[in-house]
Amino acid sequence: MKNQWIISDNNLEIKELIKNESIFNVSNGYIGIRGNFEEGYPKSYPTIRGTYINAFYEDVPINYGEKAYAFPETMQKIVNVTDSQDINIIINGEQFSIFEGTVKSFDRYLDMETGCYVREIWWLSPLGKELKIKITRLASFKYLELFAINYEIEKINFDEEVIIESAINGDVSNYSDSNDPRVASGNSNILIVNSITADENTLQLVSETQNSKKRIAVTTKHSCNVSYKVSIKKDEKSVKAIFNTKKGNKNICFTKYNIYTDSRRYPNIEKDGMRIAEKVSCHSFIEHLKTQEDYLKEFWSLADITIGSDKKLQQGVRYNLYELLQAVGKDSISNITAKGLSGEGYEGHYFWDTEIYILPFFTLCNPALAKGLLKYRYTILDSARQRAREMGHKKGAAYPWRTIAGGECSSFFPAGTAQYHINADIAYSYVQYYLATGDMEFIKDFGAEVIFETARIWIEIGHFHKGLFKIDAVTGPDEYTAVVNNNFYTNVMAKYNLKWASKLYNELLEKEPEILNKLCRKINLTKEEINTFEKANKSMYLPYDKDLKINAQDDSFLNKAIWDFENTPKENYPLLLNYHPLTIYRYQVLKQADIVLAHFLLEDEANIETIKNSYDYYEKITTHDSSLSCAVYSIMASKLGYLDKAYEYFMDTARLDLDNTHGNTKDGIHTANMGGTWMSIVYGFAGLRIKEGHISLSPKLPNIWNEIKFSFLYKGCKIVIWILKDKTEISTKDNCHVNLKINGESYLLTNNEKIVLQ
Amino acid sequence: MKNQWIISDNNLEIKELIKNESIFNVSNGYIGIRGNFEEGYPKSYPTIRGTYINAFYEDVPINYGEKAYAFPETMQKIVNVTDSQDINIIINGEQFSIFEGTVKSFDRYLDMETGCYVREIWWLSPLGKELKIKITRLASFKYLELFAINYEIEKINFDEEVIIESAINGDVSNYSDSNDPRVASGNSNILIVNSITADENTLQLVSETQNSKKRIAVTTKHSCNVSYKVSIKKDEKSVKAIFNTKKGNKNICFTKYNIYTDSRRYPNIEKDGMRIAEKVSCHSFIEHLKTQEDYLKEFWSLADITIGSDKKLQQGVRYNLYELLQAVGKDSISNITAKGLSGEGYEGHYFWDTEIYILPFFTLCNPALAKGLLKYRYTILDSARQRAREMGHKKGAAYPWRTIAGGECSSFFPAGTAQYHINADIAYSYVQYYLATGDMEFIKDFGAEVIFETARIWIEIGHFHKGLFKIDAVTGPDEYTAVVNNNFYTNVMAKYNLKWASKLYNELLEKEPEILNKLCRKINLTKEEINTFEKANKSMYLPYDKDLKINAQDDSFLNKAIWDFENTPKENYPLLLNYHPLTIYRYQVLKQADIVLAHFLLEDEANIETIKNSYDYYEKITTHDSSLSCAVYSIMASKLGYLDKAYEYFMDTARLDLDNTHGNTKDGIHTANMGGTWMSIVYGFAGLRIKEGHISLSPKLPNIWNEIKFSFLYKGCKIVIWILKDKTEISTKDNCHVNLKINGESYLLTNNEKIVLQ
Repeated sequence: MKNQWIISDNNLEIKELIKNESIFNVSNGYIGIRGNFEEGYPKSYPTIRGTYINAFYEDVPINYGEKAYAFPETMQKIVNVTDSQDINIIINGEQFSIFEGTVKSFDRYLDMETGCYVREIWWLSPLGKELKIKITRLASFKYLELFAINYEIEKINFDEEVIIESAINGDVSNYSDSNDPRVASGNSNILIVNSITADENTLQLVSETQNSKKRIAVTTKHSCNVSYKVSIKKDEKSVKAIFNTKKGNKNICFTKYNIYTDSRRYPNIEKDGMRIAEKVSCHSFIEHLKTQEDYLKEFWSLADITIGSDKKLQQGVRYNLYELLQAVGKDSISNITAKGLSGEGYEGHYFWDTEIYILPFFTLCNPALAKGLLKYRYTILDSARQRAREMGHKKGAAYPWRTIAGGECSSFFPAGTAQYHINADIAYSYVQYYLATGDMEFIKDFGAEVIFETARIWIEIGHFHKGLFKIDAVTGPDEYTAVVNNNFYTNVMAKYNLKWASKLYNELLEKEPEILNKLCRKINLTKEEINTFEKANKSMYLPYDKDLKINAQDDSFLNKAIWDFENTPKENYPLLLNYHPLTIYRYQVLKQADIVLAHFLLEDEANIETIKNSYDYYEKITTHDSSLSCAVYSIMASKLGYLDKAYEYFMDTARLDLDNTHGNTKDGIHTANMGGTWMSIVYGFAGLRIKEGHISLSPKLPNIWNEIKFSFLYKGCKIVIWILKDKTEISTKDNCHVNLKINGESYLLTNNEKIVLQ
Repeated sequence: MKNQWIISDNNLEIKELIKNESIFNVSNGYIGIRGNFEEGYPKSYPTIRGTYINAFYEDVPINYGEKAYAFPETMQKIVNVTDSQDINIIINGEQFSIFEGTVKSFDRYLDMETGCYVREIWWLSPLGKELKIKITRLASFKYLELFAINYEIEKINFDEEVIIESAINGDVSNYSDSNDPRVASGNSNILIVNSITADENTLQLVSETQNSKKRIAVTTKHSCNVSYKVSIKKDEKSVKAIFNTKKGNKNICFTKYNIYTDSRRYPNIEKDGMRIAEKVSCHSFIEHLKTQEDYLKEFWSLADITIGSDKKLQQGVRYNLYELLQAVGKDSISNITAKGLSGEGYEGHYFWDTEIYILPFFTLCNPALAKGLLKYRYTILDSARQRAREMGHKKGAAYPWRTIAGGECSSFFPAGTAQYHINADIAYSYVQYYLATGDMEFIKDFGAEVIFETARIWIEIGHFHKGLFKIDAVTGPDEYTAVVNNNFYTNVMAKYNLKWASKLYNELLEKEPEILNKLCRKINLTKEEINTFEKANKSMYLPYDKDLKINAQDDSFLNKAIWDFENTPKENYPLLLNYHPLTIYRYQVLKQADIVLAHFLLEDEANIETIKNSYDYYEKITTHDSSLSCAVYSIMASKLGYLDKAYEYFMDTARLDLDNTHGNTKDGIHTANMGGTWMSIVYGFAGLRIKEGHISLSPKLPNIWNEIKFSFLYKGCKIVIWILKDKTEISTKDNCHVNLKINGESYLLTNNEKIVLQ
């Protein structure tokens, strides 16, 4: 079964190479390095040679043809930082390149069990030197600053000395494509090299961002198992150590330890870099591999999902979870970007994707990391308050639609700032975390404040009208309709936000009155406001169409013409790249799940008939042009008993990046979709929901599979769910007392017991 | 009564000076020169030293933070061209400046009867030289290329030689202010000097725009009544002729003839410039003054409105009409910019302002110029067709919201491209022209094609829904609400567009079948399309609220909360400069007349009760933040018998620029509002409407006035309307036969007769 832990791709075609730079990124939530070749490609090959630090950004100006009040003036953009990938092997003047000479064998793979990425090449040089090279990379999960590269070189038919050139290069720039709104535009030259220091033991290159003067140091050490002479070559923007290994050593083992320290985290990036480099280079590469494997063993012990039988699918599922682990920020100033640390698409920004698509996985399979992600939102709460003031709201917080450090970075407000639902999404994820972990401390310290402040924003932007609470001029998740009144998703999520604000207030009032008082004083929250929250919650308007018996996406949606799908050629998808927004807005057509997502997140707010009718109606007019769509349709198809559809949509998520089905994996992997894969299984096929006081399940198994097995933590207990063709087992080995509702019937799961359903 | 033809302002305060640069522009529809001082201000004074050629533009790139499909990539921007204003007077080393020495008297005025602008200064230099200078400028209405400046210098207490330095300066740039969406942003350096030639008789400076390589030549000649020596001084970007006049001439008369020829109009700008300069400099300045006066005599003979009694008001009315004449393009490649040729606000673009606010004046008072304005839209019909294709429409034309030569220049589509109503506005103005002139030839040659192609766009963007024709995702005239469904204004105007397309088709089918056939073949127009036009016209949905008994601005408008006017401080107006668009969109608040405008343009599409209720409702929530608003409210207040309001709103329009009530006259005058002033009187107080087959009138006189007297051409006959306190006289001296409806009763006006109503 080893190969179900391996992602392998030996293709050397131009298009595949650039895509695989994303696929084979090695990242640990702090640093991420794209899977470029150390020695490079031929010059004409397109490449995005990239290294990123989560939340390390530059402030770049935003240009507008016509600017209006409170349009963001600058945005935060992830920086392609100093490149430490460069290694060249030279034998007798011939430089190793897989694109020259004869490649006798080539293997390229990611091992998700051990946490490393490998290239193995058996190569005959143009002049006949034969050698084997094994290159292994890792971004350490234990030492987050460490990106290590290990070379094992075996001389097959020669004895001459091998020269190893290892460089760090500060002459880097960001990638841009002004014609694709999903990629960055302009502002590609960000970093300036400040200083380079180098001796035989250590190289260090320090750079600075041009505008905001953020600093980044790369400190590099090497180790080599054979004797050598070393010389240093410096220029203005890069530095190279040249290792002249002696003749006669058949096997050379060479390790490059690169330490990244940035000024957002380290008080003295130069000294801290040196210190950490000293420390980690004491450990051999083998030791680092072992540490990496241990970390992953623990991760997989809870996170792994086995689905039996289908190897490619199993690979896909594991890859997606592995990438989430690689992507997740492990301090509270960073989060999960739309592309992880694998590329620059969406400029390294954090979106609602984290809360709605990714947090469920971490909340249930790694609550410590989930807590960090939630805490991140608390760290930017002040920015969100400030943004609310800019937007003319007297109270509350308006979280930015896209951001790194809290500033609104969206320059197209109809599909950005107008998506107020992000505030409810954040509140929702705090509540889900609370329900799954019971972690009241966290709610007291951080959650309550965020939930109160986000609840306030609904009172600011909504209004009572003929006895109903209405919310105008917002955009829901489906960006193919923008700036509408009473988007169902927004309203129902806002209702939940308001309900929980009031609920938590009352809970704290009863149990922790002092803490509540302190918080109320801090943010000037009054009982009258809570009453208004409650009133708005209870009278929230949720659009419903009596004729169609469905929820209406917004007040006007169902009056529009339906998009002419029949006469839309395949190459015109995604629509956003082929039609003006206005043209798209004019029709009933969805980029992604909107009401169907609301019906998933808050299934108790609609009856099953409405949910089913809505699914049937909206599915027909959804293009799934967003990678955030299929998972939700899969989950809801499972719920509604459309098992074939659930399977098909799931399949669309599972290998989206591995098979590059959206055609833009080169810009980075799709992290939200990856969370969606997990949800499609756990929330979809297994039908898991975290409710107040209990868990509900509704297990189903696609015909083609033999089993689904996964586990998660619920209030500290590890629960294992095993769905087989003829039965489902729910078990725990922990000391617990868990209320379950399975297919509507109540069960109690206690210590070391097993529930078996047949 | 002379002073009612004079606009005078001698204020030398910094703020007033920059505003008066706009007020005292001299323009003739081809060239426009701001009222800068020839000799300049002190260095620290802000100034926009500007000279513009109507429709002479550069293509400049538009930047977007996030770009979407079919967003315009470049826009056309009017160019601040070569400056030929420079003249300096030097006596014994002392340079004349009104900011130094002693000003014994100073007069600055525009004479609208003679068409020239004058500065008269009686000056004592710091060293005691006393002289009088009279500087007169004109932009010739006869020789459009000519901008002439005349100096009369009288030496009072000295005899020494006077040096006159006269320059043309190619070192010019556009003005920009990135924080005001109503002004241009970026791209200020456009022109490069190509060549300078100069001899004792003629200076010529040729420049070129950087991107599009459009060329402009300024050819300058001088004349002087006293003997002198001349020398030439050239540098890279400018050239100067220095006239050393001899001692002893008490009175010096010096004329500078500047000829502007641009490559959009002239095949050989250098030679054509030379040729025209030779020709016009044969005529003395006095002769040019006479020609100018003759031209204006004819203009005023039809265009003038006398309102008796109030001098400032009479000035304001005349100034506004005079500026319209100065602004109007006199060839079919140019039109009327939002700021005329007096400034760079809105970047020299043409909007719907021309059709709805300005054309009525020209249609009735100068049909030849009106024809040119309409023909301009025909010249850009191909661009409008192309834009429709870009926007995904299979047929029809989509006129750009703002443009110079036809390309869409709006970079914020919710308040730009979404304003599809411009297509109906253009069609409407063709119909109005046809009804007023009976010029069927023009309709056959140009009008029908424009009306058919614009009608088609409604079929493209609208759809039949439950038996009604609906139009989604558009923005109406009121930009404080954007991208809505079934904007009443848009729908009712589209209805008219569709009705007239079908009407003209049938009229041509009957009277000019061959011409119709030819046109139908050219644009592939079928009878089925006409049937669809007719069906859409008849089933057009016009939103109406039963409870309020008003037309609803759009499907959702009346469900929104009403803007909190009470808690909006005065300094927060205009709202667009103080609130994010989303915040504004969330409320019932209008920037300008929307339904009220529709009820004016198409009064027969609603009953008087609905019109009155709508006025009462919308007036309360209209900020008039746009200068296009008050005139419409004045007209409709007149119609509804709110005579005091009509008067107040009228007063807001009449001196908007002269009194700088919007605070931004420095960026240019407000041409649409100027057309609105005329409409407020003629369509407002006199209640004129051009209907099919007749004219209707409903005369009213504000209490404070003694009379209103104006005239216009109707189907070739000059009709004079004279409203007095006790009677109204309608008369003509022409051979005609005009059906009138006055206060609902029918009359017939025939040759040389007079209708007197008491």
